[in-house]
Amino acid sequence: MDKIDFEILKQLEQNAKMTTKEVAAHVHLSAPAVAERIKKLEEQQIITGYKTLIDLRKLDRSIVALVLFKSNDCRKLAEFCYNHPDVLECYRVAGEISYIAKVATQSVETLENFIDQSMLYGTPSTNIVLSGQKNTIL
Amino acid sequence: MDKIDFEILKQLEQNAKMTTKEVAAHVHLSAPAVAERIKKLEEQQIITGYKTLIDLRKLDRSIVALVLFKSNDCRKLAEFCYNHPDVLECYRVAGEISYIAKVATQSVETLENFIDQSMLYGTPSTNIVLSGQKNTIL
Amino acid sequence: MDKIDFEILKQLEQNAKMTTKEVAAHVHLSAPAVAERIKKLEEQQIITGYKTLIDLRKLDRSIVALVLFKSNDCRKLAEFCYNHPDVLECYRVAGEISYIAKVATQSVETLENFIDQSMLYGTPSTNIVLSGQKNTIL
Amino acid sequence: MDKIDFEILKQLEQNAKMTTKEVAAHVHLSAPAVAERIKKLEEQQIITGYKTLIDLRKLDRSIVALVLFKSNDCRKLAEFCYNHPDVLECYRVAGEISYIAKVATQSVETLENFIDQSMLYGTPSTNIVLSGQKNTIL
Amino acid sequence: MDKIDFEILKQLEQNAKMTTKEVAAHVHLSAPAVAERIKKLEEQQIITGYKTLIDLRKLDRSIVALVLFKSNDCRKLAEFCYNHPDVLECYRVAGEISYIAKVATQSVETLENFIDQSMLYGTPSTNIVLSGQKNTIL
Amino acid sequence: MDKIDFEILKQLEQNAKMTTKEVAAHVHLSAPAVAERIKKLEEQQIITGYKTLIDLRKLDRSIVALVLFKSNDCRKLAEFCYNHPDVLECYRVAGEISYIAKVATQSVETLENFIDQSMLYGTPSTNIVLSGQKNTIL
Amino acid sequence: MDKIDFEILKQLEQNAKMTTKEVAAHVHLSAPAVAERIKKLEEQQIITGYKTLIDLRKLDRSIVALVLFKSNDCRKLAEFCYNHPDVLECYRVAGEISYIAKVATQSVETLENFIDQSMLYGTPSTNIVLSGQKNTIL
Amino acid sequence: MDKIDFEILKQLEQNAKMTTKEVAAHVHLSAPAVAERIKKLEEQQIITGYKTLIDLRKLDRSIVALVLFKSNDCRKLAEFCYNHPDVLECYRVAGEISYIAKVATQSVETLENFIDQSMLYGTPSTNIVLSGQKNTIL
Repeated sequence: MDKIDFEILKQLEQNAKMTTKEVAAHVHLSAPAVAERIKKLEEQQIITGYKTLIDLRKLDRSIVALVLFKSNDCRKLAEFCYNHPDVLECYRVAGEISYIAKVATQSVETLENFIDQSMLYGTPSTNIVLSGQKNTIL
Repeated sequence: MDKIDFEILKQLEQNAKMTTKEVAAHVHLSAPAVAERIKKLEEQQIITGYKTLIDLRKLDRSIVALVLFKSNDCRKLAEFCYNHPDVLECYRVAGEISYIAKVATQSVETLENFIDQSMLYGTPSTNIVLSGQKNTIL
Repeated sequence: MDKIDFEILKQLEQNAKMTTKEVAAHVHLSAPAVAERIKKLEEQQIITGYKTLIDLRKLDRSIVALVLFKSNDCRKLAEFCYNHPDVLECYRVAGEISYIAKVATQSVETLENFIDQSMLYGTPSTNIVLSGQKNTIL
Repeated sequence: MDKIDFEILKQLEQNAKMTTKEVAAHVHLSAPAVAERIKKLEEQQIITGYKTLIDLRKLDRSIVALVLFKSNDCRKLAEFCYNHPDVLECYRVAGEISYIAKVATQSVETLENFIDQSMLYGTPSTNIVLSGQKNTIL
Repeated sequence: MDKIDFEILKQLEQNAKMTTKEVAAHVHLSAPAVAERIKKLEEQQIITGYKTLIDLRKLDRSIVALVLFKSNDCRKLAEFCYNHPDVLECYRVAGEISYIAKVATQSVETLENFIDQSMLYGTPSTNIVLSGQKNTIL
Repeated sequence: MDKIDFEILKQLEQNAKMTTKEVAAHVHLSAPAVAERIKKLEEQQIITGYKTLIDLRKLDRSIVALVLFKSNDCRKLAEFCYNHPDVLECYRVAGEISYIAKVATQSVETLENFIDQSMLYGTPSTNIVLSGQKNTIL
Repeated sequence: MDKIDFEILKQLEQNAKMTTKEVAAHVHLSAPAVAERIKKLEEQQIITGYKTLIDLRKLDRSIVALVLFKSNDCRKLAEFCYNHPDVLECYRVAGEISYIAKVATQSVETLENFIDQSMLYGTPSTNIVLSGQKNTIL
Repeated sequence: MDKIDFEILKQLEQNAKMTTKEVAAHVHLSAPAVAERIKKLEEQQIITGYKTLIDLRKLDRSIVALVLFKSNDCRKLAEFCYNHPDVLECYRVAGEISYIAKVATQSVETLENFIDQSMLYGTPSTNIVLSGQKNTIL
């Protein structure tokens, strides 16, 4: 992976719909050369997919929370979280706590339901998201 | 937004590169009808973008951590995190803690640098990610 | 609900015994017009009741405490608290802790009894109220 | 204060609008005797007021939180809380924490504002109320 | 109890072996009058006993610790502590923790024994005493 | 120090007013022999004093609390505690916390005063004593 | 043990391979006199062994962590840690926590395995070592 | 590094004074071949030194503690610890806490001194070592 690959990834990260031609203009290569490089980045699994970003608030799931768990059975907690429809992401971590779930839900009532169910697998500490920012990786 | 829009979003969420034709096959509509619906979902900002997913480990940033902050000046901490190249996402939260940053970095040395700098704005508790899972929203 | 309704509520919140006439003088309307508005506020359940305020110290219940619970079975804890005569208010919360009960009791002995009983349903951290203030909502 | 006074208070606590006659029926006394007793309860400041109960959700303040503070300057924190329009009640306590404020606010944005301002006077831990119950005192 | 009683207590608190005559000199009364007052203070159980103070370090129990317990069964913990020969004082408390024991023991090995046994009844946090001071009450 | 000295101390610890003769009866020695031994125990500072025990509740100081401090300036905190009339005992400790003060005070108002003043030197966590027991050392 | 013994230990602590002659030069004694002293230090078990220091990173065990445990069964936890190949050192402690293990392992996956297994015996809080320093004792 | 190197390291780790001949007997090689391998292990800095182990209790430093620090200036704390004669090892860590020092000292008085000085650079939580075990790496 060289500087040009890096620049190509940087363009695509922000907009997966950019055409090969548009990317090519940025890196001063021909479109076929860029297409070849993107194919290789996919084959090497540096690019792992293309995702459509959706605004959760527009889908009536405006309460977002990061729930920190202390748990003595993280495998069961991971299974519970992975299968729960309100969980967006979940992480097994090593630190003060043992598990973190990012949850998007409809109301305080559905949040209470999630917390009640999760308590079978660990002790949650809920942190409501007030505001957030996502950076690009590159 | 009706059930068909929902189904279209579900298809696209997992693969932004799916063609209108492929989506159309899933929802039993014509490709132009699907194209029209996608255009509307973009205009209503239900679809907010298209992202290329990149494997951080392939870019030599294999240490991922969720850093929990207690801070009495969250605005400055947010500014610091937003501008730091190792921060992927950051959240202002209301709970036991006041700020959470997701960091991907190269080594324990660069992690130590991030922590040292962040300490000017709050008290970090670092949780190294051991394993993680992402669900789709829909 | 308009500004006048708001002003009527503000008057009544502090003194439920205010006559319609007295309220009317504040909002520069006739008493029957005010009576009509109050009736509507009751029907819309914006006004949910009228409460007589009683000084607990005069009833020999001078120790007031806010007991914070960590619990893995909040439903049973809620049931216990709701039925305990010393509990004034109780809240299911999402944060560092999971339940908060406001207790007014006679002595350290009766407080010890409450804590001992509550320990079957969660881990209490007791905070004796030293002084307090209530604001009006409006 | 005897058993009859106690019974009168119990009736009035739940409904301040009960007429003397209605109360009298409960305690098997004449209305003037009850009126006399209520007057005494007011004079002895056992009854301290009459409050109209208002549903906060109907006034667009549906986010209720109990904010626990650790603070080294509780007097300033108390002053701040007492004067903040979103604070319903606040308590100086002796325990693990030093101050508790009950807040009702419009949105996560206004909650973030309250927390940001309060951080000048102490370290808040926010607990969003999921559900709550109020008992009568008597 | 008047000022003279108070002054008598102050003298005796520091030295229980003071003679009635010595105390009398301090309070400008006759020895029999002082004797009479002391007798009354004993009868009213204001004076509850006379204790000989012993230096624990001279008895080979030089490690003193204050052990803070979180416990969900304080009655059993209290029974355990009360009967353990290393425990000097123990308190049931309402706060962040639920029980405090003051322990004087011979060595880190005997301390480890105490902690191991106590763990059946609660979760101890041990604080070794580095230095201490006792004030008089009066 | 032999077994007889130990037995003498055990008798005196519980009752400093026991006569030499009474002690002698317990240890099967003559009164002068016991007097000689007690004199030696005093000279070796094994016996460090004789204290009159006073019931704090009878002196209108019925609120007893163990206040745990986290502090970064323990010397100043120790000085403050040592000189405060409400402090009975105070300990510099090594553990999770750094200082513990045992306080007996009149009311929640005087307790609030103590806490407010102490906050200049550390962060207090107050634990009200619900009940307590003292063992003898021997 | 005199000053010369102390100086001999100081030399050997840093380099166990130093010859008796080299040590002798430092302390201005003959080599046989030094040899005699070293023999005595070994007999008195002041010197307890000679250890070869090995760089863990060169053996592919580059993740080092200090795992703090709260546990109610420290004996079983100690047994588990002592027998686990990734544990370098482990300590039973008296304080906020009850057990500390120093672990060197290959990857986040093997760390997760260790944590999962240890959770049967206590609640771990993992602290990844970012950098470290060893002093000599003398 | 092959299996034989590994076996050589295993022998030497436990006893740095083992002769080449003794090691050779274990690995079924000639002494010169073993000497050659050890030389290479030293050159590759897999072997980083040879240490004489000294019993701290015999040097009147019988109190060993692991002090956990929360600190917002770890560089200064590291410098302080590295230069303090009582500190044996110290680690910058990423987790709930930020720094850990292993201390061996003479008495509770010298421990109090260390803690008082360290408080300028962070907030210590002291854990006295009750018992400990060291494993070999290999």
